[in-house]
Parts: sequence; C-alpha cells; structure tokens
Amino acid sequence: MSEKKRRRADPVAPGPSSRQPKPRAGPSSASALPFKNRLKPDATIVSALRQLYAAEQSSMSAARPLTLTDLGLSSTCREVADCDPSAVRLAIEDAILAAAHSVLEGRGFSFSVPSRSSSNQIYVPELDRIVLRDKSSTRGFSNLSTVRKTTITVRLLALIHQLCIKNIHVTKRDLFYTDVKLFQDQGQSDAVLDDISCMLGCTRSSLNVVASEKGVVVGRLVFTEGGDRIDCTKMGVGGKAIPPNIDHVGNMESDALFILLVEKDAAYMRLAEDRFYNRFPCIIVTAKGQPDVATRLFLKKMKTELKLPVLALVDSDPYGLKILSVYMCGSKNMSYDSSNLTTPDIKWLGIRPSDLDKYKIPEQCRLPMTEQDVKTGKDLLEEDFVKKNEGWVRELELMIKTKQKAEIQALSSFGFQYLTEVYLPLKLQEEDWI
Amino acid sequence: MSEKKRRRADPVAPGPSSRQPKPRAGPSSASALPFKNRLKPDATIVSALRQLYAAEQSSMSAARPLTLTDLGLSSTCREVADCDPSAVRLAIEDAILAAAHSVLEGRGFSFSVPSRSSSNQIYVPELDRIVLRDKSSTRGFSNLSTVRKTTITVRLLALIHQLCIKNIHVTKRDLFYTDVKLFQDQGQSDAVLDDISCMLGCTRSSLNVVASEKGVVVGRLVFTEGGDRIDCTKMGVGGKAIPPNIDHVGNMESDALFILLVEKDAAYMRLAEDRFYNRFPCIIVTAKGQPDVATRLFLKKMKTELKLPVLALVDSDPYGLKILSVYMCGSKNMSYDSSNLTTPDIKWLGIRPSDLDKYKIPEQCRLPMTEQDVKTGKDLLEEDFVKKNEGWVRELELMIKTKQKAEIQALSSFGFQYLTEVYLPLKLQEEDWI
Repeated sequence: MSEKKRRRADPVAPGPSSRQPKPRAGPSSASALPFKNRLKPDATIVSALRQLYAAEQSSMSAARPLTLTDLGLSSTCREVADCDPSAVRLAIEDAILAAAHSVLEGRGFSFSVPSRSSSNQIYVPELDRIVLRDKSSTRGFSNLSTVRKTTITVRLLALIHQLCIKNIHVTKRDLFYTDVKLFQDQGQSDAVLDDISCMLGCTRSSLNVVASEKGVVVGRLVFTEGGDRIDCTKMGVGGKAIPPNIDHVGNMESDALFILLVEKDAAYMRLAEDRFYNRFPCIIVTAKGQPDVATRLFLKKMKTELKLPVLALVDSDPYGLKILSVYMCGSKNMSYDSSNLTTPDIKWLGIRPSDLDKYKIPEQCRLPMTEQDVKTGKDLLEEDFVKKNEGWVRELELMIKTKQKAEIQALSSFGFQYLTEVYLPLKLQEEDWI
Repeated sequence: MSEKKRRRADPVAPGPSSRQPKPRAGPSSASALPFKNRLKPDATIVSALRQLYAAEQSSMSAARPLTLTDLGLSSTCREVADCDPSAVRLAIEDAILAAAHSVLEGRGFSFSVPSRSSSNQIYVPELDRIVLRDKSSTRGFSNLSTVRKTTITVRLLALIHQLCIKNIHVTKRDLFYTDVKLFQDQGQSDAVLDDISCMLGCTRSSLNVVASEKGVVVGRLVFTEGGDRIDCTKMGVGGKAIPPNIDHVGNMESDALFILLVEKDAAYMRLAEDRFYNRFPCIIVTAKGQPDVATRLFLKKMKTELKLPVLALVDSDPYGLKILSVYMCGSKNMSYDSSNLTTPDIKWLGIRPSDLDKYKIPEQCRLPMTEQDVKTGKDLLEEDFVKKNEGWVRELELMIKTKQKAEIQALSSFGFQYLTEVYLPLKLQEEDWI
C-alpha cells in the first residue's frame, strides 16, 4: 500500500464538532494515521461509555430475565439447570431406580431420552435463544438399534456418579478413556454425555465434565478461583487462562465500563500488550476462535454478575457473525443448555462490512468471499436472531452484495497499532455499535 | 473393568523395602487402587527428588553449555541468537545496504539467503540438537524464479524494521495481513520470515514476531511479566497463560524441585485441580499438544534460570516421543534456532511402553498402533537423539514389538485421580525416569 493512500484521511459521517483535530496525549507519533485527527480526548470517549454502562446496570437490575415458565412454555420445552453434585447424584439414582422398576414390571431396561435433533429445537424470540422441545424417545437394552447407546449411557451415569461423590472435574477425553473399547470413538461418548445432561436436567458442567480450557482474559477484573484471588490487571500481557470449571470461579469485582469480546488471539494480544484496558476501563476476553463452553460460561457470569455491556470485535465475514451468534443464542448442538451458556444483547462493534469503506480498508486487504461464504451469509439472513436486529440485517446484506470480507488484522495495513490507537477509540467515541 | 481386576495389586520389580504397605496421610480413601500400598511417605519421595534437584543444580552450574565455537563448527554451521531490537534494526539496515551496493556494482538487487532444507541440517551429538549448515543461495529480483520471494523478503524486512523501532509484538498472522495480495497465503510469509531470521542471525522472537499463546503454567513459580508479579501458586486451577513474547518475562524464582512437562491438557487439569505441586514441589507446564514456540522458550528459560530437572509426562506412542524430541532437540523447520528453543536432558517419566504391563493398564484401554504409527516409531529409532539413550531405544523397540499404544488418560481406568495419587508418586519414589 502506498504512503499516499495511508495519509488520506477523508471524513466519515462524523458529528460536526469532531471534524477539527484536537490535541490529545498519546503514546504514538503516527499523526498520519487516517481518521486519527477525528479522535476526541479520552475523557470524552469514557463519558460516552459511562452512559452505556449506566443503561446496562439499570436495565439488568430492573428486569429479571424471562424464563420458559413466564412464557408458558415450561411444559413443552426443556432446559437444564446448574445443579450441585448431590443433586446430580440424586438425579442419577432416580434414573437408575426408574430403569430397575421398568425391569421388575416386565418392560425391560430402558431410559427415556430427550431428542436433541434440530427438528426438536425452536427459537424463542422473547428469550432470543434456541431451546429444546419436549420430544423424547425410549432407549432400551432389548432393542438391537439402541442396545449400544443404552450400555454407554449406563457406563457414563456410573462414572458421573463417581465424579459427583469425589467432586473432581474431568474432561470428555478422560471419560472416553475409561472405556475405549466400549465407546469406540470419543464422538460416541460425547453425544451420550449430552443426552445425559438433557435427561437429568443438569448442565454438563454440573456433571463435573469440563471442556479443555482455551480462553484468556485480561483487564479490569478481579475474581477468586479455587480460593486464589486473581487480579487480571496484573496478569502481564498474556493474561489469565479461563479455568475449565466455572464453579471454581467466584467473587467477581470490576471497575470496567464494558467487556470487549474479541474473536481472535492476535487482536487480543495487541490489546493486551498495549494495555488498552488502562486507557478505556474494560475487560478483554477471547476464546481464540470458535467459542468453547468454558469461555461462554465465563462471559455469561461476568455479564450477569457485573451487569456490564458487551461489545464484540470479530472478523467481517459470516463466520465472525456465526461466532457472535454462538455466544448470544447458543449452538444447536447444546440448545438444551442455552439459558446457562448464552449471553444476550452482545453489541456488534466491528469489523462490520460497512467499516470496510468507512475506514478505507485497502482493496488488497479485503478478501473475496467464496461461494460457501456467500451461502453461509444468506443462511444467516434466514436466522431469527439476525432478523430481529435491523442493523445486523443491513450489514449482512451489504456483505453479500459486495462479496467482500476482511479479518480484524486487515487494520494492520495502517500500522500494527491502528486497532488500539484509532479504530477502537473512534468506534467507542461515535458509539458505533449495533 | 471389573472390581476384582481393580483390586489386584501385584508387585512390580520393587525395592524390597517398599513391599510392605505403610500408613500415610492422603486425601483419598481408595486403598483398593493397584500399587497404592507400595507408596512410601511423601517425605521419603521428596528426599529422592531433592537429590535429583541437587545433581541438576551442580551440573548446570559447573558446565557452561557447549557452543558451535567450542566444537570448531562455527564456520560450517549457522545459528541465530537473541538480539535486542536495535541490533535487529542494524542487521536489517546492513542487509539493505549490501543489496544497494550490489545494485550499484551492476550485479542487481539480491540477498544471500541460508538454505533451511533438510539436506542442509545436521545433528550434532555433542550438542544433542539439530543445527543448520552454512549452505546458502542467492535470492535475486532479476530472476523469474526468485522475484516473488525477493519482493516478500523486502516487504517483511521493512515491517520488522518498523516493529523494532516501536518495540511492539505482532503475530505471523498480523504480518500476513499487512499485504494479503502480495503474500497470497500465510505459508509464504511465514516461510520467508524464517529465512529472514536465519539471514539476519536473530531469533524469530527477536524480530518481535510471536506465535499465538497456547501453553499454561501452574505451581511453584513466581516471575514478572511486563512489570506484573505473577505467582503461579495463586493462579487457581486454570493456571497462567504463557505469554507469547518471552522478552516480557523476567525474575523467575522458585522453590520447586523439578519441572513436570505434560503433553496433554487433560492431565494438566487433573494435576492443577489436585494441586499436585503442593504435595511434591514442582512447576507444571503444558503446551496442550504439539509444542509452540512460546512454551518452548518458557521451558528453556525456566530450566536455564532455575537449573531444575525436567520430567516429562507424555502419551505412550511415537507421537508423544516426537513431542519430547521437539522440546529437546528442536523441530527441523527451525533448526537454525535450536540453541534458543531446545531444552536438553528432559527425562522421560511416563507413560512408557513398559508401564503398560508394569502398571497393568487394562487391555481395553490400550490401542493398537496403526501402520503409520509403527513406521513413525521405526523412523524415530533411526534418529540420533534416540539412539544415544539406550533406555529410550529399549522402550521404543518394546512399543514397536507389542504394537500397542496408550494415552496418559488410560490411567483413568483405575479412577480419575490414579494419575496424581498413585502413578506419579510411585514413579517419583522409584526414580523411574530415563
């Protein structure tokens, strides 16, 4: 990209008062950065964030979140809840007792297992998430097509029972390895584990089965983990690994004004190294790509306990939006657990398709969308949780029309710190989230 | 697995004094665990570890590590060194100046780039690692076959120069995104980045280009990271994310007796949740699979500064051994940087092929090796760094003969905490590392 192009700083739909460049203290001498002269002093930006924060605090304090019962759906939809280990044990003992009774009554050994297929899922607009309906099927030992799954179910129930007695946590992989010859491949034990979570009405983390940790967090957050006090402003540039077992986490405290949810590791690194959270009080969190359960639970817990607005920084492509939708509405695979795993009302800060022109992202840093990308984009337009947000629909339509996508790192074409020094501050200043 | 099988506790080649079960304090009531009665009191085990620790401290204090110069290889082999940002800048300016001189002298714009192909690599037994020989080739702008690579080289040199002036760190992905149309795919910019590291004689982390962080550490370690003091005994159960930029890390302190290097995330989690490091003073570290550069640098730094022995817990398969060899001898792809990335003298604690029978790992938890596994195993037997350790050769031969492999999690068949409560303590007690 030419120096000339880099120096261009065309105005982009600004408030009139922001047209004059104003002096501000900053670590960078890169005054040639496009749009940098549009930035107001940090204090002005922070006061805008304070309003966002106050709105979130009051709305979350006022409104108890809607439940299936409120909507009269508790008998036709099914959800799981966080349970303590003794409740899980009781639920397992009840299930086994029911199976024993079934044997004694001459009906053979069987369980009633909820269906997790997509035909048994429904999007509830009032809740803004996918939930599971109440269809279930009989999984019996005396039926050739279900005997294997029944055996796996019993084996896993016994193992989870043991976990709850000892109150220790293991991974899905550990479970698989307790009986490789029976489970054959991990996909089989994983699927039955989800069935069991549904069947018992307990979340998978209640079963003391956790996913590998993948996420990291840094910034204005203090919490306790297994009795240790963790101060995420003192976690260097790497940050704190988000623990796989959320029930070890408690006592969250923060003076942040918002949570910045980042799709990619590289952008997280840039923000952490530049200590962005010191300039704009926030908590920065990433799952490094596809959100894992531990990071989703952690985000949900932060949002719920601290009542903070969540702003998302993702790639401008259908996949970035899909990731956002997993955080917000849950994955279809775990729709039975959507109330515990989802964080509603995440605001899409960027990179949005309209940003590509607005911020003059050079042509060579945009990528053409593949046919598959376009198809995924069109499919997203059909999803209920996209439809309900006009701004999202417009952005998606623009993406599909231009057939262009861009990763967060495309901003690196203006310099590696353009993200933290210009793009994000300007976004926050203009309250440019939807 | 039947209860009966679980209760069997056959003696396994023990020292005579360890045959009598001894009372010891422990959190578990699982006295039926095989070999648990063989465990001596923790204090006895710790004193064995103290000897290992003392030996390491004295050997590492006495012997300055050998260098290429000591071996008279400095003129025929090539290595890179950690350089500070100003040294990297000077090296880049020298390279560009040389290219300009070449133009002025009528020989065209070109660089001399070291070859990184395997034919230019050599294993040096005295150093116990792979190093790069001194073959290089001319990369010229006026040659059709090298013009693209030359252009990429110049572009990257300019970007790295900028990074060193600002002293900020970016990922390979960030670099790629500064000029997608030129680099085309990240593989191309990554490969030239390795060339540049070689060409300038500076490590890739000196170039301020870092890999994604992947590793985590927990246990008896205190260090500073970007000015923050990190106490890894107070990092909950998730541990501390290893930072991508090792030059932010300093002032390591520890009262550990050893470093426990773990291949897998699941085993790490078990050790962290059980706070294994409180029972046996150690630092627990994992890269969650294939070692990344950040974790390798961190391990190297711990071993060098703290002079601690390193014990490794990996799967009993050729892949586990390969991972060990990457930590110890480096990867072929980055052999030019082997002196900075490798941690010599890692001891193979387990899971070793001989452990499968010794610890009565049930048949159903062992997996048959594929043909590819057997081939990889046989290839490893030909590697110099395996050949020089008789114990490793014997274990590998046994693996290939039995055609059986097992993951660390196979120990879960005796209970999820068998690893931390019996297997590892017994291994340490019997000083069973090779």
